[in-house]
Amino acid sequence: MQNLKDGEITFYTQGQFTDLCRGPHIPHTGFIKAIKLTNIAGAYWKGDEKNKQLTRIYGVTFPAKKELDEYEALQEEARKRDHRKLGKELGIFTYDEMVGPGLPLWMPNGAVVIEELERLAKETEERAGYKRVVTPHIAKEDLYLTSGHLPYYQDSMYPPMELEGVKYYLKAMNCPHHHKIFDAEQKSYKDLPYRLAEYGTCYRYEQSGELFGLMRVRCLHMNDAHIYCTKEQFYEEFKAVNEMYLKYFKIFGIEKYVMRLSLHDPAKLGQKYVDEPELWKETEALVRDVLVRTNTPFKEVADEAAFYGPKIDVQIWSTIGREFTLATNQVDFAQGRRFKLSFTNKDNQPETPLIIHRAPLGTHERFIGFLLEHYAGKFPVWLAPLQVKILPISDKSMEYAQTLLDSLKNADIRAEVDDRNEKIGKKIRDTELAKVPYMLVVGEKEMQEGKVAIRRQGKGDLGVKSIDEFIPEIKKEIKERTSNP
Amino acid sequence: MQNLKDGEITFYTQGQFTDLCRGPHIPHTGFIKAIKLTNIAGAYWKGDEKNKQLTRIYGVTFPAKKELDEYEALQEEARKRDHRKLGKELGIFTYDEMVGPGLPLWMPNGAVVIEELERLAKETEERAGYKRVVTPHIAKEDLYLTSGHLPYYQDSMYPPMELEGVKYYLKAMNCPHHHKIFDAEQKSYKDLPYRLAEYGTCYRYEQSGELFGLMRVRCLHMNDAHIYCTKEQFYEEFKAVNEMYLKYFKIFGIEKYVMRLSLHDPAKLGQKYVDEPELWKETEALVRDVLVRTNTPFKEVADEAAFYGPKIDVQIWSTIGREFTLATNQVDFAQGRRFKLSFTNKDNQPETPLIIHRAPLGTHERFIGFLLEHYAGKFPVWLAPLQVKILPISDKSMEYAQTLLDSLKNADIRAEVDDRNEKIGKKIRDTELAKVPYMLVVGEKEMQEGKVAIRRQGKGDLGVKSIDEFIPEIKKEIKERTSNP
Repeated sequence: MQNLKDGEITFYTQGQFTDLCRGPHIPHTGFIKAIKLTNIAGAYWKGDEKNKQLTRIYGVTFPAKKELDEYEALQEEARKRDHRKLGKELGIFTYDEMVGPGLPLWMPNGAVVIEELERLAKETEERAGYKRVVTPHIAKEDLYLTSGHLPYYQDSMYPPMELEGVKYYLKAMNCPHHHKIFDAEQKSYKDLPYRLAEYGTCYRYEQSGELFGLMRVRCLHMNDAHIYCTKEQFYEEFKAVNEMYLKYFKIFGIEKYVMRLSLHDPAKLGQKYVDEPELWKETEALVRDVLVRTNTPFKEVADEAAFYGPKIDVQIWSTIGREFTLATNQVDFAQGRRFKLSFTNKDNQPETPLIIHRAPLGTHERFIGFLLEHYAGKFPVWLAPLQVKILPISDKSMEYAQTLLDSLKNADIRAEVDDRNEKIGKKIRDTELAKVPYMLVVGEKEMQEGKVAIRRQGKGDLGVKSIDEFIPEIKKEIKERTSNP
Repeated sequence: MQNLKDGEITFYTQGQFTDLCRGPHIPHTGFIKAIKLTNIAGAYWKGDEKNKQLTRIYGVTFPAKKELDEYEALQEEARKRDHRKLGKELGIFTYDEMVGPGLPLWMPNGAVVIEELERLAKETEERAGYKRVVTPHIAKEDLYLTSGHLPYYQDSMYPPMELEGVKYYLKAMNCPHHHKIFDAEQKSYKDLPYRLAEYGTCYRYEQSGELFGLMRVRCLHMNDAHIYCTKEQFYEEFKAVNEMYLKYFKIFGIEKYVMRLSLHDPAKLGQKYVDEPELWKETEALVRDVLVRTNTPFKEVADEAAFYGPKIDVQIWSTIGREFTLATNQVDFAQGRRFKLSFTNKDNQPETPLIIHRAPLGTHERFIGFLLEHYAGKFPVWLAPLQVKILPISDKSMEYAQTLLDSLKNADIRAEVDDRNEKIGKKIRDTELAKVPYMLVVGEKEMQEGKVAIRRQGKGDLGVKSIDEFIPEIKKEIKERTSNP
């Protein structure tokens, strides 16, 4: 068949028809119950433009019309929720050629979302007894040789800067800096668990071809922390981290999630895994126990642990059913020794702490990308860059609108007045499109009565209230971080 | 005189005595009213160890005993207030050999001070209509060639990282990234003034020999912002920045300050300075006018402006009278053009905005170094890493202490219990040394009455109150950012 050989490419023969296809084919078209052609593309026979042009026809088919309809609706929804599209429309982030690929610039609206996420994490970690630290974005080669990231992780790091004969690297992870802070002051068992948290920004070199919106980037704002604890404290600490994950999922309305528990392979101790058979058994049992006892859905995967201990990867699903790998929770026996970290135990002997690496919100980049899709850009009030827009019906209520703005700002609510010379219908439509949760429509009637007509994004009219009634209600919604109704 | 020649070194002859000295000498020792010898050092004659050893005697003298005493007291106070000493004692920052020189690691207590300073700046800037952004710490060479920082500023930057044939630099300033955010969306005169703020971390290469504590570092957390405005808006914007400086000085109890206004030299237009004679005259007059009208102490310095516009450097003095150069406030005609920034003016024509670069708190590093000295480590309550320490007199009041701790934590007050098995006298002394503003001493009597005995750091007993009386009082002190009494 014209110099094409089976084995190099695939043929499939059905009756008298031989197709360039791996097969199988359905016996006849009567089996097709629902079909839609989605796309066509041209191609020259054997890739040579002197040959005839062929047409490739793309399509999808389902066993029933209903399933096809569902598929199409989901595709349409996914297009609308594309985080790159929403990110641009809502002024969340941008890229610039001169700054570089994979290095997002967070626009004012994106910075609000970042700050609110940080505030949530700081409050949560404050209550859970974490201490915050701030560390530089670079360090000498020495630090990463000690941690073991060099040379093994070198391909994922930016190349070094050489200064006065010393190589400096942009940090790709925060742990070595945190270990140094742990080590800066003498520790005893009374100081443990010692929990260090940082919104550290790390840099990882992803291949240009792999970069994708906020999902694969080179600059990563990490909600990172490291917990230094004794073996006796490990169970409670790991459980607390697990509970923190679940608390976050609840806040963000993430209903479907699975934790993937990666275990070691006893046959590879001393090679792929730290040679500590007892510690492996012990911590794996403890981790499994936490997951079982807290009814956390999880699956176990053999021979996929980190070099230094078992780990958990968290998979979550957005409201439209797309899967995201969000965060990692790791146990670490090895770094403590590599950095010679120690505390004085109850018997007055030096002992190496266990370390938990955890990042429940993962990176801002991926998490905000996820949230854009998950909420279709309609952030709950506490996360919304603009929380309230005041829409004066005409110039006559403009001054009243300004006094309302002052009241809202004094209550630390992010608000603006739409002072354009536009019809109220257009003002409402534009504010709906900008996905602002609350609109306060004010005309002469509202002004005379000292009230505001409240509209909720996507829900319409919520009735008329005084600003003094409205403010405590929205403040409560913000404080409780209520999901959208 | 033994092969020494005047001209190469200096002689001074008085009567029959010729001294190796630039002179003059006092006529006789009767003129000395107050003297103190401070130090001695050995040196070999002509620096050759085969020669005799000489002794160099250091001393200070003042016209009166009182002045000498004052000088000595100040020296002693400066030693006590050395920010490197206090920074270590109070767990504010540390350095690590593996991380690198000039790259401080902010310990938990330092991170609290940083967060409080950021919160102050964010609140202040929020009210002043700034928008926050977040930008990466690196950018392509292109960005700095466009801004003009390369090659002129190259010596102060870390060397580049070369990736896929492109050079990336660690940012030494935030302005070029902010210009890109200004440029990401179309602007009209209605969008101006457009104020972008960021706690950006910049990296500058200072020579190893120049590094000094937090005063000369290589990693700089900058309270930075850029204001894009029209010429008409410039006066009000510059005035608002100036007022913000004064507001900060008041909060920190900085009573002595001078602004140093650096002007251009008309003879050097087109060479050292952008060739815009009218803009120079206009903005210099506006800047001067702001300073005069607000009664701000300032001095003018000719021929010291930046290439792109007049600038103000702010000098402040700590409580013990030491001078710090804190911050810069600059007008910029040039960057807007280099980046082709524009907005549509009222006549529907493209126009280049003026840019104000400002950083009232300077860098965290220098400012926290200043504050450590200024407050002698005794931070006002709002800035104190630990605000309240609860001191149970014995185990009997330990449980009561814990309930007090819960009440304080629920009110977002940074508090701890001293649960050591120590005498109350030692607990008080240690807490005083740790410079914690408030101590709540609780024994059986306080427990039975449901009260706390309050002590203020450095002031002693403040009487007995219920925790419900104490909490609103300290909350008020925190909210108003009261200076120490």
